[in-house]
Amino acid sequence: MRTVEWNQQTRSLQLIDQRLLPEQFNVFVCWSCDDVAAAIRHMVVRGAPAIGAAAAFGLVLAVLQHATSSPDALQAEIKQAAAALADTRPTAVNLHWAIRRMLAVSERHFASGEELSQLMLAEAQKIADEDVAANMQIAQIGCSLIDDGDTILHHCNTGALATVDWGTALGVIRLAHEKGKRVRVLVDETRPRLQGARLTAWELKQYGIPFAIISDGAAGHFLRTGQVQKVFFGADRVAANGDVANKVGTYMLALAASTNHVPVYSVFPTSTVDLKMPSGDRIPIEERDPAEVLDIQINGSRVTPEGASARNPAFDITPNHLLTAMVTEKGIVYPPFAKNLAHLMGR
Amino acid sequence: MRTVEWNQQTRSLQLIDQRLLPEQFNVFVCWSCDDVAAAIRHMVVRGAPAIGAAAAFGLVLAVLQHATSSPDALQAEIKQAAAALADTRPTAVNLHWAIRRMLAVSERHFASGEELSQLMLAEAQKIADEDVAANMQIAQIGCSLIDDGDTILHHCNTGALATVDWGTALGVIRLAHEKGKRVRVLVDETRPRLQGARLTAWELKQYGIPFAIISDGAAGHFLRTGQVQKVFFGADRVAANGDVANKVGTYMLALAASTNHVPVYSVFPTSTVDLKMPSGDRIPIEERDPAEVLDIQINGSRVTPEGASARNPAFDITPNHLLTAMVTEKGIVYPPFAKNLAHLMGR
Repeated sequence: MRTVEWNQQTRSLQLIDQRLLPEQFNVFVCWSCDDVAAAIRHMVVRGAPAIGAAAAFGLVLAVLQHATSSPDALQAEIKQAAAALADTRPTAVNLHWAIRRMLAVSERHFASGEELSQLMLAEAQKIADEDVAANMQIAQIGCSLIDDGDTILHHCNTGALATVDWGTALGVIRLAHEKGKRVRVLVDETRPRLQGARLTAWELKQYGIPFAIISDGAAGHFLRTGQVQKVFFGADRVAANGDVANKVGTYMLALAASTNHVPVYSVFPTSTVDLKMPSGDRIPIEERDPAEVLDIQINGSRVTPEGASARNPAFDITPNHLLTAMVTEKGIVYPPFAKNLAHLMGR
Repeated sequence: MRTVEWNQQTRSLQLIDQRLLPEQFNVFVCWSCDDVAAAIRHMVVRGAPAIGAAAAFGLVLAVLQHATSSPDALQAEIKQAAAALADTRPTAVNLHWAIRRMLAVSERHFASGEELSQLMLAEAQKIADEDVAANMQIAQIGCSLIDDGDTILHHCNTGALATVDWGTALGVIRLAHEKGKRVRVLVDETRPRLQGARLTAWELKQYGIPFAIISDGAAGHFLRTGQVQKVFFGADRVAANGDVANKVGTYMLALAASTNHVPVYSVFPTSTVDLKMPSGDRIPIEERDPAEVLDIQINGSRVTPEGASARNPAFDITPNHLLTAMVTEKGIVYPPFAKNLAHLMGR
């Protein structure tokens, strides 16, 4: 199944519950827009493209919940639902991008609930299908960057689970493998939520791609000693100047790679680009619950002392000069990023 | 009690068991040299100065075990025990330094078991006492580097638990706090063994120093956004050119700090300096059991997929140009490190 999948029979949204993987494969069913907002907030679904698609279906659920309301009341409900969804996570821009697309449909069609729900469902499906198509295109384009025999260092999860299906950075690696290139992946575990150790490792195992999990802090050792040929990761928001907001730890990884002349690639659909954001410095960085850092057990026993506090920024900013190139469904973008991103986006 | 403490009544070595902290405070008693070797290997005791002192007492236990042997046989037993201890962990040089000091005593005194054990116990006690004295001296000297109001980012554990007592980098921070300087510490959790989240947090809590634990990958965010004034860590071996082998993750931290013009200090007793090692590139990097990376639980459930593999280098090399200065009991060392380290060590 897709990571984000609409069930037309039950009129519900089905999400692969990423909090329980790899121990349990559970499907989390959203019956209301509130369910979707909670799923995004608590990271049942995560990954910039996946949460964008989930939010789109969330708005379909909002319309269905208020299908008997007057068109006026319905429009108000949709706006309220959109605001609630937009409020769940601040950094990834795909969320806002998908919500804007959905609102454009509802504003264009001042229709009854049943009719509007069908129009909006069509748009949400289109967003989801386009994401899969973009990922396949990204993989085809990005594949040329990977050489036979490469060891690739990868941060967080950017696979099928981070998108509607297939994946961005991990999708490139997957296609290179399927085309017969021998690749090995060093998987940053990606503290605190361990998307690498949990999800990327689980996906790579299924794809039959050899991998080894490493602590995030160990990446520097492998980069400095010439054991890595490429670094790949995704993006949660890309500013007009090419600065990349991505999962915390990306900045130190890109810095260590760049310093050691290892190419650094950020891979994302163009829905992740936010040309209104001039640079990374103004991208809001979500700070999540300290419990994500503190609640860690080894051999069944708690690690951190009682009453300890923690800081938990979920993202960081990688300055554009650390990137070798960006891979999108519209092509590979090289420096100067400001000029080439604007051109890519048709500005 | 000291982290490494001889019990004269029972003729045993007592170690604070660092695997169980902070949940349990247990004392691990070593009755034989093999017990000490196992304790070092399994990190019951860790931290370069602490394992040096523990090994010294381990050789005392070896002599006591063979006290009735002939002087010839005894010398052979001591050499075998020394080799076993030296083999436990390859990176920290204090281990070899302490063993060399102990062997010098046994070689100088071709004596009976009882007499030799007393001479060697005196030397082991001297090594332990000198470590505490060196740490106090380091703290007094290093204190001048800390300003009132500093937020200090600290990697791994370098406190009382990493030494015989008091600590190196954390000892400096502790004394600055005791002298009334307001300091805050961002504690790198230090995967995979979590010496920061477990031990440094536990020590800071006892000292009443405000702190927050962070994921190792989050350090870059705090450094890049100007939220850190100083970076402090210890060392496991310092090469003649000033390259520093230290707990894995140190390199990326020092690189991110240096890039963002945040001063970087490595703090260690001179027993950590290995002038015979020309540069960091030839320092052996211990690779530990992958289980240290893989066996991690969140909310009681295993994180990594069944059968996943991992790589687990326990240390990395920080090139000397990333360091602002080194703090030792003989003074602060500034660049050029090759020249100034040689001068410091009286070469």
